[in-house]
Amino acid sequence: MAAQSFAPFRKLHPLPLTSVRIDDPFWSPRLKINREVTIPYVLKKIRETGRLANFLKAAGKMQGEFQGIFFDDSDVHKWLEGAAYSIATHPDTKLEADVDEAAAAIASAQQPDGYLNCYFTIGQQDKRWSNLRYMHELYCAGHFIEAAVAHHQATGKTILLDAARQLADCIGGVFGPGKRRGACGHEEIELALVKLYRATGEKRYLELSQFFIDVRGTEPNFFLAEITDPNEKFDVSTMQAHKPVREQAEVVGHAVRAMYLYSGMTDLYAETGDKTLLDTLEKLWASMAFKRMYITGGLGSTARHEGFTSDYDLPNDAYAETCAAIASVLWNHRMLMLGGEARFADLMELALYNGVIAGVSLAGDTFFYQNPLRSRGGYSRVPWFDCACCPSNVVRLLASLGSYIYSMSDAALWVHLYVGGAAAAAVGGKQVTLTQKTDYPLSGDVKLVVNTASLAEFSLNLRIPGWCGKHKISVNRRPAKATRENGYACIRRTWSDGDTINLSLQMDAMRVEANPHVEADFGKVAIQRGPIIYCLEEADNGRELFAVTLPRKSELKAVHRKGLLGGVKVVEAMADLPDASSWGGNLYRKARGKAGLKKKIIAVPYCCWANRGAGEMVVWVNSGR
Amino acid sequence: MAAQSFAPFRKLHPLPLTSVRIDDPFWSPRLKINREVTIPYVLKKIRETGRLANFLKAAGKMQGEFQGIFFDDSDVHKWLEGAAYSIATHPDTKLEADVDEAAAAIASAQQPDGYLNCYFTIGQQDKRWSNLRYMHELYCAGHFIEAAVAHHQATGKTILLDAARQLADCIGGVFGPGKRRGACGHEEIELALVKLYRATGEKRYLELSQFFIDVRGTEPNFFLAEITDPNEKFDVSTMQAHKPVREQAEVVGHAVRAMYLYSGMTDLYAETGDKTLLDTLEKLWASMAFKRMYITGGLGSTARHEGFTSDYDLPNDAYAETCAAIASVLWNHRMLMLGGEARFADLMELALYNGVIAGVSLAGDTFFYQNPLRSRGGYSRVPWFDCACCPSNVVRLLASLGSYIYSMSDAALWVHLYVGGAAAAAVGGKQVTLTQKTDYPLSGDVKLVVNTASLAEFSLNLRIPGWCGKHKISVNRRPAKATRENGYACIRRTWSDGDTINLSLQMDAMRVEANPHVEADFGKVAIQRGPIIYCLEEADNGRELFAVTLPRKSELKAVHRKGLLGGVKVVEAMADLPDASSWGGNLYRKARGKAGLKKKIIAVPYCCWANRGAGEMVVWVNSGR
Repeated sequence: MAAQSFAPFRKLHPLPLTSVRIDDPFWSPRLKINREVTIPYVLKKIRETGRLANFLKAAGKMQGEFQGIFFDDSDVHKWLEGAAYSIATHPDTKLEADVDEAAAAIASAQQPDGYLNCYFTIGQQDKRWSNLRYMHELYCAGHFIEAAVAHHQATGKTILLDAARQLADCIGGVFGPGKRRGACGHEEIELALVKLYRATGEKRYLELSQFFIDVRGTEPNFFLAEITDPNEKFDVSTMQAHKPVREQAEVVGHAVRAMYLYSGMTDLYAETGDKTLLDTLEKLWASMAFKRMYITGGLGSTARHEGFTSDYDLPNDAYAETCAAIASVLWNHRMLMLGGEARFADLMELALYNGVIAGVSLAGDTFFYQNPLRSRGGYSRVPWFDCACCPSNVVRLLASLGSYIYSMSDAALWVHLYVGGAAAAAVGGKQVTLTQKTDYPLSGDVKLVVNTASLAEFSLNLRIPGWCGKHKISVNRRPAKATRENGYACIRRTWSDGDTINLSLQMDAMRVEANPHVEADFGKVAIQRGPIIYCLEEADNGRELFAVTLPRKSELKAVHRKGLLGGVKVVEAMADLPDASSWGGNLYRKARGKAGLKKKIIAVPYCCWANRGAGEMVVWVNSGR
Repeated sequence: MAAQSFAPFRKLHPLPLTSVRIDDPFWSPRLKINREVTIPYVLKKIRETGRLANFLKAAGKMQGEFQGIFFDDSDVHKWLEGAAYSIATHPDTKLEADVDEAAAAIASAQQPDGYLNCYFTIGQQDKRWSNLRYMHELYCAGHFIEAAVAHHQATGKTILLDAARQLADCIGGVFGPGKRRGACGHEEIELALVKLYRATGEKRYLELSQFFIDVRGTEPNFFLAEITDPNEKFDVSTMQAHKPVREQAEVVGHAVRAMYLYSGMTDLYAETGDKTLLDTLEKLWASMAFKRMYITGGLGSTARHEGFTSDYDLPNDAYAETCAAIASVLWNHRMLMLGGEARFADLMELALYNGVIAGVSLAGDTFFYQNPLRSRGGYSRVPWFDCACCPSNVVRLLASLGSYIYSMSDAALWVHLYVGGAAAAAVGGKQVTLTQKTDYPLSGDVKLVVNTASLAEFSLNLRIPGWCGKHKISVNRRPAKATRENGYACIRRTWSDGDTINLSLQMDAMRVEANPHVEADFGKVAIQRGPIIYCLEEADNGRELFAVTLPRKSELKAVHRKGLLGGVKVVEAMADLPDASSWGGNLYRKARGKAGLKKKIIAVPYCCWANRGAGEMVVWVNSGR
């Protein structure tokens, strides 16, 4: 296995995307929409907005100014990366032609010295690398490298991978030990260079990644040194450059930047085993998971710097950029690979089923940038953004979903996510196929079948989600002997062809409460069932949802609604509503005993909200005492 | 009585300030601080910041540019108005000398044509009246007129009153029917001109006030017509000019502007009896009192335009400018004078005892501009503001407190506020003195003694506050025969010298709730005792006050604390606090039964908050169910 020659400090390795098939009632419709609607739609917008034409202009094949924002190249790269994943799993000659056209355009814009960036190439050549803190050159380069690797893996073509090497070498000619001290104001190049190292075997790309990670936040601060206007206010913590990365213990600044940096650091650890990185990553993860994360997996409490603020500051008018939830999946998956600890898979799942897919409409052609946990109405997904990072990020994440479901390690096959389909892997020296059948998260019942040509001894490690109170596992209808390791039920045995595992995860609708230090959620509960976080919407429950109170003893009833929002389990309960009619129009009065109204409320999955108009919504509901 | 020849549509008339004496444990210390600390302190700041020097520059007696903000004249005028009230009640030769010096400086800056405004006179003469929407010329003129009238009444000197006539005539030469259509972006001139009319008997000042009120919001909109820059965004509702005033039914825009306008309209109604004005005022008052007012009497939900937003939008990070609460006292007092309805006195009292005096420290030398109903800490009064409207407004309101306590009408003497001291009035054809003895609001017990040289038949009308559940009244220790009229207990009898009335207002600490449409206060209660709104402060209760829950059955105990904050009744209760120790650092968990901690909480009067450091504070506390 090629993958195993890299990342020696990973215990787990993901399966190649092409080794995984998805056939799942929850995900397949979404992935179909991603392929059939979102991928073509984003390409259309990329063309309409001049993002693709910028490459032709940079190549001198078209006249005109650069159009759009200076980092718009990255949207093309991210779309191309996603489209490449899609081609890999669902060959499509039309899409491949579009990909090749885009690839050719991009490649044609590369300069003789390997440099590739439309904004600077079109008339700003002399400004290259002059403003690392804002101008995203290395960020765009990173997304190009990721796209190039995906394109190569999907098509076998080398046009982009070759260009990526040249670009990386161009960068390596400028930055590095003994050369210029610098890094990007928006991290991304770090993880991309490790990908390029793994795709090419060229150690210098790994070393360049290490350089960018190590130099970040060191003195003298090169971001601050760039500033010539004494009035420019600049907070380097926005880009995690307030101190050397190994001295950072709190997630700060721009959330997407942070997640990309930590992903790169995790990749670097996987290659180098540098324990100081791992210690730092554990501290950062704890800071995020225990102090600065929304219950939807969303990240970022403020629009100010699109990022983190302070511990427990989680206002429900959250920023929670779609890209940040996606980036959390990327980081948590990388952390998961290190040691196979389910806590990382839990957050990956939480973000996937909630914060990430809330970012795109069920129809696949409108998008959220911010994903608040409440709305007083009037907030809805839109067809596009000037800063359009999120749509193409959704595209590439969904198209690569297969890589997040399974892993393998020495003599173990791991199931992290319960998604119907199948995986093929060589494990314990044998070629094995694992078929998964489930309607998760409608229920917690999962059936797994092992197919193997000959007896195969390995451990099948099934994640027991953190939200799950009780579970049962049988093998061939008999209770399974499983050990519990880091949140995984590990069934070590010699498997025969056709062995069938039944996993049953108790999946009751439950109330979740937030740590009492969280002001925004104090006295409130959220409804969760399995990995799904629920919300109340105006469409089902009327307005002034802030005034709904869910008595503590009110039963939560999960009801399947086939026709609703593509088929979901709603959660119904009896709730208390205030009786405004008793007020006679007054604004304040001596408090009375509560004699409110009773009303059935209906909660729907948060990931499906705002698909029925821009009404009110709340995730956190007042808790009766 | 001079006053009665004016305002024929007022049923009630205030007593002259000099007919009222205050000797009251709650107010006397505050008024002493106002006289001895705040008045000299504000003068010192007015001098230090060049506000007074601007007049000498405008007079050509000093060289230099205008210093400060274009409306800074008004701070001098407001200080002078307040100082004049102070001289009237507490003669003080030192202060009178300061007042005369300021008066001379101001008068010297008046131009030959009567114009008076330092900003425009110093080098902007050609720009006079060119930017009514922003530049506050008529606003400054209005404050000057108020100061001039107060100065004349206090000292008998005519220097400023003469100047005020000349200024008003200068304005009347520019604006009016057949002249220029226009009014001020910040209302104030309207009420000032009615004051000048009452002080001089010159009807043209009343007519000019009427013009400014009538022309406001009519088409074509003269504020919009001033705009030459097509990019200037301008919302005329900020200055209540979005429609003619008689078509306005909701309080909108900048809160101080709104209150000053409505005060002017009320004055105009009092003179003209124009029923369309009264109808409008009733609608506006209902909009404020029933939909857009904080429980502290504060006004203004947003810093954006320092004003009103939408119905029930009352976030506890309130703007609630000190000046707006003061202006609410001004307007409610004027409404009260029309018909003697206690609902207006209730709001006047509410603002006075809470939103107004919270604006100044107990020491008298630091000030709040904004008066939020909660703080997470770090917010404290400051020594001064660039835009320093509030300190001088506090000065003039406190110095004139005597005018708000009593009124008289045909054969009735009214007591609106329970403030120890005495009032002298001619009522029922006799000269009567009413002495008031009370420790209100420490208790609700008030003793009133009538002194009259001969038998006097009149009605003594005592306000029964809206917050009061039960009350008792005796005359000479026997239950009094009183009729209830518009919230007043009216005791009509022939009074003999020494007749003693005992009023006992039940004053229990109680919980108040907000209309359930108010999101910010949903599920919460405020503590009120008498007119005093309470809050929890960090100094007594620690941090994270948002997590305090007051069970519905927890007894509220009022306890006198002599040494605290100048001597207050605190309210004590047992409350629930979350037990964060049971969380093991997690951010979310399956909700458990509440097993919180019990803790005694101590609530203090809101008006005294932030006198012990810039700690946390909440007015609204979670209500247990």
